Amino acid sequence: MINVGIIGLGNVGAGALQILQENADQIALKLGFPLCVRAVCSRNLENKPATEGAIRTTDWREVVAHPDIHIVAELIGGTTVAREVIDAAIANGKSVVTANKELMARCGAEIYDRAIAGRVNLAMEASVAGGIPIHAVLREGISGDRITTLYGILNGTCNYILTEIERRGANFEDVLKEAQAQGYAETDPSADVDGFDARSKLAILSALAFGERIVPDDIFTEGIRRIMPVDFAYAHQLHHTIRLICAARQTHAGLILSVRPSLIPQSTILASVRGAYNAVWVRGKYGADTFYYGRGAGPHPTGVAVVSDLMRVAREIRSGSPERVSPFAHARLGEYLPIPITLNEAAYYLRFRVVDRPGIIAQLAAALAAENISIDSVLQLPQENWRDLPFVITVEPTTEASVRAAVARMAELNFLIEPPLAMPMEKSL
Amino acid sequence: MINVGIIGLGNVGAGALQILQENADQIALKLGFPLCVRAVCSRNLENKPATEGAIRTTDWREVVAHPDIHIVAELIGGTTVAREVIDAAIANGKSVVTANKELMARCGAEIYDRAIAGRVNLAMEASVAGGIPIHAVLREGISGDRITTLYGILNGTCNYILTEIERRGANFEDVLKEAQAQGYAETDPSADVDGFDARSKLAILSALAFGERIVPDDIFTEGIRRIMPVDFAYAHQLHHTIRLICAARQTHAGLILSVRPSLIPQSTILASVRGAYNAVWVRGKYGADTFYYGRGAGPHPTGVAVVSDLMRVAREIRSGSPERVSPFAHARLGEYLPIPITLNEAAYYLRFRVVDRPGIIAQLAAALAAENISIDSVLQLPQENWRDLPFVITVEPTTEASVRAAVARMAELNFLIEPPLAMPMEKSL
Repeated sequence: MINVGIIGLGNVGAGALQILQENADQIALKLGFPLCVRAVCSRNLENKPATEGAIRTTDWREVVAHPDIHIVAELIGGTTVAREVIDAAIANGKSVVTANKELMARCGAEIYDRAIAGRVNLAMEASVAGGIPIHAVLREGISGDRITTLYGILNGTCNYILTEIERRGANFEDVLKEAQAQGYAETDPSADVDGFDARSKLAILSALAFGERIVPDDIFTEGIRRIMPVDFAYAHQLHHTIRLICAARQTHAGLILSVRPSLIPQSTILASVRGAYNAVWVRGKYGADTFYYGRGAGPHPTGVAVVSDLMRVAREIRSGSPERVSPFAHARLGEYLPIPITLNEAAYYLRFRVVDRPGIIAQLAAALAAENISIDSVLQLPQENWRDLPFVITVEPTTEASVRAAVARMAELNFLIEPPLAMPMEKSL
Repeated sequence: MINVGIIGLGNVGAGALQILQENADQIALKLGFPLCVRAVCSRNLENKPATEGAIRTTDWREVVAHPDIHIVAELIGGTTVAREVIDAAIANGKSVVTANKELMARCGAEIYDRAIAGRVNLAMEASVAGGIPIHAVLREGISGDRITTLYGILNGTCNYILTEIERRGANFEDVLKEAQAQGYAETDPSADVDGFDARSKLAILSALAFGERIVPDDIFTEGIRRIMPVDFAYAHQLHHTIRLICAARQTHAGLILSVRPSLIPQSTILASVRGAYNAVWVRGKYGADTFYYGRGAGPHPTGVAVVSDLMRVAREIRSGSPERVSPFAHARLGEYLPIPITLNEAAYYLRFRVVDRPGIIAQLAAALAAENISIDSVLQLPQENWRDLPFVITVEPTTEASVRAAVARMAELNFLIEPPLAMPMEKSL
């Protein structure tokens, strides 16, 4: 029998506990031995599910110090107490399962080093895209491949908002308010709509995919606040749609990492990801493209990830096999070094909101030409629907640096109501 | 160092060997130790890739008997010699990685029992949906869930043919001939287009998903030869499309298993699987729906599966952890017993080809009414395009037994050019 201590009974903790209890018989049959919840720690002891046979406490130290407990599940989140919990568990010779995206994104490599030195196991499937077993896929399923590109839709709130703007032509602010009312978005929505949540997830996934120590600050990040219904109308004209795309692409110069609204072809399977779902698209040198899709969050999908991790770690403990190689460190030093986003090469979509007057296109075209950027198409929908005449110029593949230089040149053009919105067009999907 | 012996240098063997050679450095970094190809066996020794440091032989017995070899990769296929190879390897204390769909579908449970008794490891990721790491997903990634439904598109040839019929309105026979000319389909296409290949794959996946000893004969199987372009026209009217769907569904009565052309809603992500791709859609009691997509075949995608398996097994050997629990046997006895397809409940699509005369609908409706089947809709496209007036009746959810009884009643109606084509409509996706 392997004993588990659960620290944190929020959504994820309660979901995992329920699965461990209800599904105990099947878990034991799959493992060949039972997995037993021996202790549960939560901030308070009221209104919490029954946990027969388990110690109930509000003091996490009691759990990480308990001599019978083999695995500690850290499910409280955040980067302060959670870090203390994990460090103490490892120091006490316990293996750790965590759902902590923020902490693992920032300190995952360091925590894995500690676990390896302490000869215990560490697992974090639940930290990214709860319902999608993307860690198992990268760690085991396609470990023989050499990954070249990873695209993700990793924030369910943003994907819900974008697909509602697309479906109903509603404004960002209105959809956000609805999402908040329905509990899909937080009162302070910044972590979601400004891309920070997705950035942490991409940091973890790209570290796993490329074996490099990647942290959130390595990732260029832009949120979805500026996306308007008219952007979907133009994107559809181009047979594309718009999603908040987390991208990690290996290039000759290095690894390009970004979280930003991007145009993706409607024909790609990523474009069929609607609502609060998450998805990851991976291209390998050998295995070509694979795609993984599921719920991004929720007590039960994330709970499945936690329980599956507990099962894997329990198996490893039974076979006396601690963590040996950090998933963050299989790249040769610098093999996949992150490089600045300004080196990104792509076709771009540029959307302008202007006060109408003659010569607008000529002046914008001149700014692009001055940076050696070739125009691919100029799109303008019938004006009646749009007071401020949003129109679009798409440009042939160029660098982000050139696009930024051209946009800087446009700053002095006083017919622009706001700076142009620039989005890459991910044609390689 | 862990040493591998490869038996079989066809498409899959050559692909796996190439990855092991080209990607050796990254594999060693991920594992923490090198994976070395120590022997290679093929039917002849001409025109084969160089294998420095490895024994080259045409006698598989030399490989399975070699004292330095830890893992034997059985990549010859078929159920005769391959079985001998695997049995001999296990008897000699070697772990086994296999890509053998047919053998594992028929004898997987028995071979796992042997491996467990012999205290070695066994892995078979490459046996189903080469490019999709669905075994790792079921075995590890979502092992904490309790799977209720699994749908697969598991035969790339059929999916290619169906999506070409859909895209171009071409006939089955013409698309098949093209696919044969292009090497996508075999000269004898029966294993693909009659569903037998998909049936073997579903046997393996449903065994893994439900932990039950399921063999191909448990699975109702029907191929795609009867699908006409007009079926897609009608399916589209119903906002559906048609795919060869491998289904395993847990019901109160037991497990319903089938491989058959089926209508699936255009809004489901399974409907976006086009061309020679494979996909698996899984619903769990806790994790809700997840979806996995990739190449179904090809030397490199399947090679990645073989190499990833070799890496996993190598890790297990290093940690002294043999197979302990058969993936085919975690269900309690009879928990997921396969039940006859006649107990299937679904809405059905019935397509009729008739010689025009008055009273046709009335007579067909009478046959349905006699079996207590309610008509949902009657669809008829403009006649000019179709000489034999194919038209469609969809019926409300009923049992397969009732549909068959109604179809039997229709046998005496002499206006029918051929028996009705009945397909379930998978609305639960």
